Amino acid sequence: MRKFQLAVFFLVNMSVAQAQDDSVMIRRISDEILLHGESYDNLRALTKNIGQRLTGSPNFYKAIQWGLKTMKASGATKAWLQECQVPHWVRGGKDAATATVGTQKKQLDVIALGNSVGTGAAGVSAAVVEIKSFEDLEQKRDSVKGKIVFYNYRFKANFVNTFQSYVDAVPYRAAGPSLAAKYGAKAVIVRSMTHSTDNNPHTGSLRYDTTQPEIPAVAIGLKDADWLDSVIAKKPVSVSMKTGAHFLPDTVGDNVIGELTGSEFPDQFITIGGHLDSWDPAEGANDDGSGVVQTMEVLRTFVALGYHPKHSIRFVLFANEENGLRGGLQYAAEAKAKNEKHIFALESDAGSFTPRGFTVDVSDAQLQKLNGWLPLLQPYGASVFSNGGGGADVEPLKGSVGAAVGELLPDSQRYFDYHHARNDVFENVNKRELELGAINMTALIYLVDKYGL
Amino acid sequence: MRKFQLAVFFLVNMSVAQAQDDSVMIRRISDEILLHGESYDNLRALTKNIGQRLTGSPNFYKAIQWGLKTMKASGATKAWLQECQVPHWVRGGKDAATATVGTQKKQLDVIALGNSVGTGAAGVSAAVVEIKSFEDLEQKRDSVKGKIVFYNYRFKANFVNTFQSYVDAVPYRAAGPSLAAKYGAKAVIVRSMTHSTDNNPHTGSLRYDTTQPEIPAVAIGLKDADWLDSVIAKKPVSVSMKTGAHFLPDTVGDNVIGELTGSEFPDQFITIGGHLDSWDPAEGANDDGSGVVQTMEVLRTFVALGYHPKHSIRFVLFANEENGLRGGLQYAAEAKAKNEKHIFALESDAGSFTPRGFTVDVSDAQLQKLNGWLPLLQPYGASVFSNGGGGADVEPLKGSVGAAVGELLPDSQRYFDYHHARNDVFENVNKRELELGAINMTALIYLVDKYGL
Repeated sequence: MRKFQLAVFFLVNMSVAQAQDDSVMIRRISDEILLHGESYDNLRALTKNIGQRLTGSPNFYKAIQWGLKTMKASGATKAWLQECQVPHWVRGGKDAATATVGTQKKQLDVIALGNSVGTGAAGVSAAVVEIKSFEDLEQKRDSVKGKIVFYNYRFKANFVNTFQSYVDAVPYRAAGPSLAAKYGAKAVIVRSMTHSTDNNPHTGSLRYDTTQPEIPAVAIGLKDADWLDSVIAKKPVSVSMKTGAHFLPDTVGDNVIGELTGSEFPDQFITIGGHLDSWDPAEGANDDGSGVVQTMEVLRTFVALGYHPKHSIRFVLFANEENGLRGGLQYAAEAKAKNEKHIFALESDAGSFTPRGFTVDVSDAQLQKLNGWLPLLQPYGASVFSNGGGGADVEPLKGSVGAAVGELLPDSQRYFDYHHARNDVFENVNKRELELGAINMTALIYLVDKYGL
Repeated sequence: MRKFQLAVFFLVNMSVAQAQDDSVMIRRISDEILLHGESYDNLRALTKNIGQRLTGSPNFYKAIQWGLKTMKASGATKAWLQECQVPHWVRGGKDAATATVGTQKKQLDVIALGNSVGTGAAGVSAAVVEIKSFEDLEQKRDSVKGKIVFYNYRFKANFVNTFQSYVDAVPYRAAGPSLAAKYGAKAVIVRSMTHSTDNNPHTGSLRYDTTQPEIPAVAIGLKDADWLDSVIAKKPVSVSMKTGAHFLPDTVGDNVIGELTGSEFPDQFITIGGHLDSWDPAEGANDDGSGVVQTMEVLRTFVALGYHPKHSIRFVLFANEENGLRGGLQYAAEAKAKNEKHIFALESDAGSFTPRGFTVDVSDAQLQKLNGWLPLLQPYGASVFSNGGGGADVEPLKGSVGAAVGELLPDSQRYFDYHHARNDVFENVNKRELELGAINMTALIYLVDKYGL
C-alpha cells in the first residue's frame, strides 16, 4: 500500500527527485534527533528542577526564565518575552473530603477543580445526591437543593480515540458546577475524566455561569467514585469537604518566543509551540512539558543541520493554556495588530506518546497538499492528517490572521491516565516516543517552509 | 486519504454492502473488548498469581494448568494439552559480578544469558578486554586468551523500528560467547540489547557453537556498561563473576490448545497464539503474557458475540518460545503428520503496545487481499501489512504445511525497555493498548475466516 500511495501522491505534488531530496533531509532530521537529541534532558530539567508551574505561581516565572535561556541555547536568531495579562488562581493548601455512611467514615482522595471557589475555613458538609447524566439532573432537580451533587458520568471506554471520551465527559467538569448551583446545590464532586486503573483525582478548569451562585467543586478518582456509587445505592451518604481555592487579581506573565529569521520571506511566519504552564498536582510532563521541549528541539535540529529556513520560524512557549489561554490569545492579537502574515502554526499539546499523525484546521486544497507529504512522514509514524481542528493555543491565530493551524496527534491511549493528575511526571515519558514526535514536527515544518502551504 | 483508499481497495475485494457489514461487525468486536474485555484481568492473574514461567520450572507447569482452565472458561468448544519435549535450563541462584579497578571495587548488576553454562562455585576472575564489534574482536584476537570479553556493541538509536536495532545487535549475545571462546576467552559480559534509560540487565538466549569450549556469559545494563567503558580506557579492569546456570535433562511440557470448531470447513484451520513461557527475571508481562491473554480474548469475543466461524479456529499457548521453540515446532510437526490444512496462523509476541499493523509472510496475492481490508482496520490502529515475516512460533507452520503466517505489529518504541528484564511486569502494560491489540487480531481473524486468504 505504501508503494501505491507514493505513486499517486508524488505525481500530484512533486517530482521523484524532489521527493528523494526530502526523504534524505528527513532521514537527517531523524538521525540528529535520535542520536543527539536534547528534548529528553530538557524535559528532565523542566520537570525535576522546576516542577509544577501553575500560571502566576513562583514556578511559573522560573519556567519562563528557564524557557528563555533554553530557547537561546537551542540556537534562536533572537529570543524575547511577550507580555500578557494572566489569571492568578491558587489552590490555597491541600484539598480534603471525608464521606460518612452511618457510623463509617472514609477519606476521599480529592482535588479542587481549577477556577473553583473555596469552601471557607468551616468547609461544606451536606448529604450527597448522585447524578449520572445531565438528564438525570433534570429529573432530580427538586432534590439537590442544599446537597452536594456527585456527578458520576463515566468516561466512555469504547471510543478508540480517547479525546472523544474527553469531549463527551468534560461538560460535567466545566459546566456541571453551575448547572448544579442552579438547582441549589452547595458543592460538587466530579468523577475524574479518565479511564485509568488507579484512584488519582484529575483536576482541570471549570467555568462558572455568572448568573448562578459560584459553588466549590472537586474531582475524585475512579475507585472512590465507584465506592461512592456502591454505598449510595444502599444508604444515605454525607460528605464534608474543604478547599482553600481562590482567585487573586490578574497578574502579568509572558510567552517565550524564539525566532529563526527567514532567508527569503522574513516577514512571513511559521509558528511552532507548546504551553509552559501546567496544573499543580504534578510536573506537567505530558501536559505540556513534552510540547515545550519538542518545540525547542525543532529549533535545535534546524540549527544543528545548518538548515536556513526561507520563512521566519517562531518557536513559542505559550504562557497560560490551562486556565485562560491568555498566551495564545495575546500572540494572535499581536500578530493581527502588526498585520503579520502567518502561513502555518503547529502545536504539540496531546502528550509525549508515539506519533500517529496530525490534526489540522486547513482548506481542502491545503489538506490535499499535506496528504501528498504523508509518504515522507510515514516511516516516522505519522500516517494521517485529520481535518478536525488545530491546538488550543494556535487556533486563535486562524481567527486573527487566517493561519492554517495544526497539532501533533500522538497515540491517545495513555494520555488521560496522566492528564491533570499527580502521575503526570517525567518517569511517564518515554524518550524515544518524545523524540519521534519532534521528528515528525520538524519534518512537517521543513516541508511547509520549503513548499509553502 | 482514507476515503481514497476505501474507494480503491473495496473495488478490488468486496462490495460496499459487504464492507458495511464488516465495519459493523468490527465495531461490535471493538465495543465488546473495550467494554467487557477480560484480557487485562487475565494478565493480572498470570503475572501476579503465577509470575515468571521459565520452561521446565514449577511456575511453567502452573501456567499450563492456568492456561487450560482459562481457555475453557473463555468458551473453547474443546481444549487440550499437546505434549512436547522441552529443554530445562536453570539459573541456579543469583548471578553476581564485581569489577576491580586498582583498589576500587564495584558490584555490577548482571544476569546470566539463557542457556549459559555456570562458572563453578569458585567463579571466574580475569582481566577484561572491551570489544566494540566483531571486527574489533578480529583485530584483538591475540589479546583475549584467558580474559573476560566485554562486548560493548551499542543498540542503535536511529532505527525507527527498534526490532531492527535488535536484529543488528543480537549476534553479540547469541553468537558472541562462542566467538570469544574460539580465541581463548574465559567468559563474556554483553551490553544489554536495549536503549532504556535505566541499568537493568536483559537476558535472552545464547547459542553455543559446539566446536568451541562453552564459556559462561552474562549481560549488564547500560549504565554499568558505560561505566566499564569509561574506566577501561584509563586503567586495567578485572572482573570476578559467578553464575550457577546449567542444563538439566530435557523434560516434558505442553502447548495449551483451545478450538472453536468450524461450521463449514471444520478440517481447515486458522491458528492464533502467543507463548506461555517467559524468562525468569520478571513476570513476562509483555513477553509474552500479553500475547497469551490476547489470544484467549479473541476466543472469548467470538463466543460473546455468538460468532460461529466457518473454519476451525485454534487458540494456542505455545510451550517454549524463549529457549527452544519446541512448542511451535511440535505444533507444526503434528499438523504435518496429520496432513492438516492450515490457511493462516497469527501470533502476538511483540508486546502489549498500541497496534500499528501486522507483519506477514504471505504471497503477493494474499498481501493484496490483506491490504484491501486495511480501511476496516485503520480506525482501530492497524495501518500496514508489512511482508517481513510471521512470528517465531507460527513460522514453522509455513514450512510444514504452507500456512500463510503473520504477527501483530505493536508500536515498537518501548518494547526493548522491558524485554527479558526485571521490569517486564504487569504495571508496564496499559489496559487499552492491550485491548486494541486484541481488537485488531479478532478483526483480522474474522475477515480471514469470512473471506479466506
